[in-house]
Amino acid sequence: MPAALRNDTFLRACLRQPTSYTPLWLMRQAGRYLPEYRATRARAGSFMGLATDPGYATEVTLQPLERYALDAAILFSDILTVPDAMGLGLSFAEGEGPRFAHPLRDEAAVAALQVPDMQRLRYVFDAVTSIRRALDGRVPLIGFSGSPWTLACYMVEGAGSDDYRLVKSMLYARPDLLHRILDINAQAVAAYLNAQIDAGAQAVMVFDSWGGVLADGAFQRFSLAYTRRVVAALQREKEGQRIPVIVFTKGGGPWLDEIAGGGADVVGLDWTMGLGRARAAVGSRVALQGNLDPNVLFAPPEAVAREAVAVLDAFGPPQRADGTWDGHVFNLGHGISQHTPPEHVAALVEAVHAHSRRQRAGVQVDPALPGNLIPSRDGPGAARS
Amino acid sequence: MPAALRNDTFLRACLRQPTSYTPLWLMRQAGRYLPEYRATRARAGSFMGLATDPGYATEVTLQPLERYALDAAILFSDILTVPDAMGLGLSFAEGEGPRFAHPLRDEAAVAALQVPDMQRLRYVFDAVTSIRRALDGRVPLIGFSGSPWTLACYMVEGAGSDDYRLVKSMLYARPDLLHRILDINAQAVAAYLNAQIDAGAQAVMVFDSWGGVLADGAFQRFSLAYTRRVVAALQREKEGQRIPVIVFTKGGGPWLDEIAGGGADVVGLDWTMGLGRARAAVGSRVALQGNLDPNVLFAPPEAVAREAVAVLDAFGPPQRADGTWDGHVFNLGHGISQHTPPEHVAALVEAVHAHSRRQRAGVQVDPALPGNLIPSRDGPGAARS
Repeated sequence: MPAALRNDTFLRACLRQPTSYTPLWLMRQAGRYLPEYRATRARAGSFMGLATDPGYATEVTLQPLERYALDAAILFSDILTVPDAMGLGLSFAEGEGPRFAHPLRDEAAVAALQVPDMQRLRYVFDAVTSIRRALDGRVPLIGFSGSPWTLACYMVEGAGSDDYRLVKSMLYARPDLLHRILDINAQAVAAYLNAQIDAGAQAVMVFDSWGGVLADGAFQRFSLAYTRRVVAALQREKEGQRIPVIVFTKGGGPWLDEIAGGGADVVGLDWTMGLGRARAAVGSRVALQGNLDPNVLFAPPEAVAREAVAVLDAFGPPQRADGTWDGHVFNLGHGISQHTPPEHVAALVEAVHAHSRRQRAGVQVDPALPGNLIPSRDGPGAARS
Repeated sequence: MPAALRNDTFLRACLRQPTSYTPLWLMRQAGRYLPEYRATRARAGSFMGLATDPGYATEVTLQPLERYALDAAILFSDILTVPDAMGLGLSFAEGEGPRFAHPLRDEAAVAALQVPDMQRLRYVFDAVTSIRRALDGRVPLIGFSGSPWTLACYMVEGAGSDDYRLVKSMLYARPDLLHRILDINAQAVAAYLNAQIDAGAQAVMVFDSWGGVLADGAFQRFSLAYTRRVVAALQREKEGQRIPVIVFTKGGGPWLDEIAGGGADVVGLDWTMGLGRARAAVGSRVALQGNLDPNVLFAPPEAVAREAVAVLDAFGPPQRADGTWDGHVFNLGHGISQHTPPEHVAALVEAVHAHSRRQRAGVQVDPALPGNLIPSRDGPGAARS
């Protein structure tokens, strides 16, 4: 029996329920900008050494929570675990990013592709269970996967790319091959996320990191259509608790309306889309997550606070005039940079919690609502060293 | 006295006047994908050897016109000529992209920055005059510059960047320094484009290649505001002919409405923004330019033609029900890749001209309108080897 959740602000915001402040977490919050992360990684020997060991994965997942009053934890893993389990041979060369030994470059390779046995990803589900136990109800745990399209980019290119020439050549020249890859990816991602939920993930996020490189029309057919399939196949409730689904399409601003209709509870936004306009566009269909430019964190703490306030004010107070609530989960618009000074993150967390409480001043929140007014050592404003 | 223009379809589309087909040109149409370009560059010794020699610049500017029935020529140059003239020391290392020897990294460097003497850019204006003479009225010549913000990115970073960390740090930490750079850049870019117009450019384009990396709010203050200043300072008519101004913001989809209100005649779009939605958003305020994904050109000619038709159909027939015309200039959504097979470009040009004529079937175009129905060796459908 898992511990009761002591801070459910994140889940409530995802589900557009009242909250006493705007919850925040940061994409890649467990990462290289933290010296304690670098120390653990050095012990683990490599990135995959970290990610495949549930003990290490648990340790680094919790590190940012020890420093900052973050409102959610996110599984420490990589989006490329799924294609690795498909046999593509993932490796991380030092300072070079991911690389696949066996990218999908011809018809035979595509024909041979199969949904992997989820047992090959057992280390991920074990990490989820271990992290969930270590969190002990402190904040919710988010599981995640790359989107079918984003995985396909890496699977065809074999590595990161500036222009996505190979995967786009396949898209335009042999769409049948790409559709086959995407179909298998969608099945695999759905099974992968459902297994994370079974293992204890309390929300899941689909990272469509490269959806924004597609042309209008192609995005809908080759990215969004398959993300929708994944979302439709997910279990959305467990032990009486709704499991929110977040879909984040980097560069997806032009398609916000269509993404918001894709079945997710929350749509993640990068920093190019103003939150006020986005909120007006999605109405009460979904909550929004985002969208501070991670580069703001290089500025001094006062500037960080000012920009955080600007993001909160762009969204506005989440309660509508009719008394219903919209949801805003504060986040960066992309992963935090490894060069970020850790003390600037503290300034961000403080500013988001303080200003979002001010935004709600005068707004009546039922103190009986779970998670809203429960003093907790993990809540905002708690003393930290 | 310059030769009369024999094909003014491009200028007419920019100004939302009737045309008998949709004109096209391609960003970076004179470039490395053409073997004849590579041969000239080898003779010139380097990229800057090409760009600073009006004879070579003329030669390569005209090369794509010899192969394809393109409706405009664009000055062969680089967006970094202006900061180079400011004394930042531009060089192109083989296979590495541009680099500045003296990037703007501190207050003293910013304080010392000045609008350069346009005489230092004489080689550009001489190239414009030389190209204009060589074109001899065949198609119009487009001059261009980087936007103040895009130039500032390179000037502060010192080279290309993945994350724009240095220039964004300046933006958030020392906006006063960045505003000074942008102010000087705006003055320099306006003077530079006006001198190109004086030398013979018949349209000018501002490339805001990195506007799309900015956050909402920052884009308006640090990019669009300065592009507007440039546009407002340009001479818009010469010898009784309107000089169209094109503004292209890569990734600018979320701000299309504001960009369209910035004073340009034409707004360039990348491939993420559907042309139908964009046309509805800008109404009859501006013409649109774009927006095929350059990666389409890696697909076989039939697929290239199909995707070109899809772009034209997304815009729709340019004549409105009330008899007025909207303008569409076909282009890629970004520069053509050096890996593009040249014969695929031929398929693109053919498809755009043929299908856009079909789109106008039944639409009456006054045969007396200049440029519309004049048979020309440069017009679409002319025999080419």
